[in-house]
Amino acid sequence: MKKIAIQGIQGSNHHIVAQKYYSDNIQLNECLSFDSLTDSLLKKKSDEAIMAIENTIAGSIIPNYALIDKHNLHITGEYYLPIHHHLMALPNQNIKDIKEVCSHPMALLQCKEFFKNHPSIKLVEDVDTSAVAKAIAKQQLKGVAAIAPKIAADIFDLEVLEDEIQTIKNNETRFVILQTKKPINQTNYISKASLRFELDHKRGSLATVLNVMSDCKLNLTKIQSLPIIETPWKYAFFVDVTFNSYDDYSKAKSIIEIMANNFKILGEYKNGRS
Amino acid sequence: MKKIAIQGIQGSNHHIVAQKYYSDNIQLNECLSFDSLTDSLLKKKSDEAIMAIENTIAGSIIPNYALIDKHNLHITGEYYLPIHHHLMALPNQNIKDIKEVCSHPMALLQCKEFFKNHPSIKLVEDVDTSAVAKAIAKQQLKGVAAIAPKIAADIFDLEVLEDEIQTIKNNETRFVILQTKKPINQTNYISKASLRFELDHKRGSLATVLNVMSDCKLNLTKIQSLPIIETPWKYAFFVDVTFNSYDDYSKAKSIIEIMANNFKILGEYKNGRS
Repeated sequence: MKKIAIQGIQGSNHHIVAQKYYSDNIQLNECLSFDSLTDSLLKKKSDEAIMAIENTIAGSIIPNYALIDKHNLHITGEYYLPIHHHLMALPNQNIKDIKEVCSHPMALLQCKEFFKNHPSIKLVEDVDTSAVAKAIAKQQLKGVAAIAPKIAADIFDLEVLEDEIQTIKNNETRFVILQTKKPINQTNYISKASLRFELDHKRGSLATVLNVMSDCKLNLTKIQSLPIIETPWKYAFFVDVTFNSYDDYSKAKSIIEIMANNFKILGEYKNGRS
Repeated sequence: MKKIAIQGIQGSNHHIVAQKYYSDNIQLNECLSFDSLTDSLLKKKSDEAIMAIENTIAGSIIPNYALIDKHNLHITGEYYLPIHHHLMALPNQNIKDIKEVCSHPMALLQCKEFFKNHPSIKLVEDVDTSAVAKAIAKQQLKGVAAIAPKIAADIFDLEVLEDEIQTIKNNETRFVILQTKKPINQTNYISKASLRFELDHKRGSLATVLNVMSDCKLNLTKIQSLPIIETPWKYAFFVDVTFNSYDDYSKAKSIIEIMANNFKILGEYKNGRS
């Protein structure tokens, strides 16, 4: 049975991704931070890990890019999950009974408009959306609600008071699947890659690299310049590309490797959108 | 007297930037969130506002880009501030007396290594670094420490227990100066611009735009693809460029305006690095 590390506990969005991504029976390792998720992989307590990497509203989760880079983790897959926030509490309560809502700062932020109409509810930051749902159930906390996915209400026997309370309905998070060893890929299913490289501060250097990508028929799906830690305002680039032919991609790879500094492949995997 | 909105209170990093950026006498308007900072400008309670926009460790503060874009604010300047985290408490206490440290999640994150050596200290998230320093002073809270800039210890009569407790010493935040009206620029001092545009998902479209920038002698100092809210995985680009000649920049501007969709100038200002 594969051991899969997730951030958060059962009932979290990471748990949903685990259910959707793996068809087999898996053993979930619940990690309470992205640091401990990484640790779980490095210490071989888990075979693979699921990590949120970007969100349509909040953008990239930069510290997670840093974790992948620093520990030389390999991205072996990705999954796009639509995010639904539901307000849930112990059964037989009304929204008027709720004095306090505890959740992750990001979830609270994404439901800001909803709570403007309920000014008497106190918003409290917590580390994990589903951990709050679990605590409400375990400690039978009345007057407290959690913001969590529907699955958390099912697991912890809570009642959904309001569904889809997020301000922007179109909210999606991209998760990556990680492992410590570079997988031996059958190139025929590979259609996406995540790359990292640094460039001299010479004018047009990025344009030149992007021209190579374009000439080799790679589609850019993401680009981000990131500060190189310990060297303020020198930038590294994180780039995601999709392609139809692995040969085209290989060609681009060998050219960019010569042109850029510290070129690194963070992962080659199947495009989660295709 | 100019009214300047800052995020946070006196003794915060925003306050330091206000002192450094404005030579004149100014009136500070303390805002407890970036939303209320924006409000202060829009409701004309403040003439200008100072807003943190990116950090060497954490990367861009994406929701702040969204605020600037949504409310059509204009960037009229920038300031780069080295960040120093100091642990401070009521006088005559030792680090062993400290049971709890309250600070902004970002400050706690940046001092993670320091607190690994003090596992008995409880870390509590709070909205503002200096507000904690103020509360400690006002309520004479013993056993509680704040992480804040040196200036906060001076203002609130606290004692610095440990200085420079950040893990990565080279930590810098970039702040932008904002106003609601487009300033009438004397182009001779303008050497940097922040641009936003959208591109068709045609292969090579970004490379083409960057080629124009390079041909017009613009230096790219930052690029970021950002999801367009309500349209998942269609990207807008936020780009910062520096240049020696405003004419070169003007030429690039008029070409990109034709090539890209929804081209917008977020600001034209003096390069904070020059």
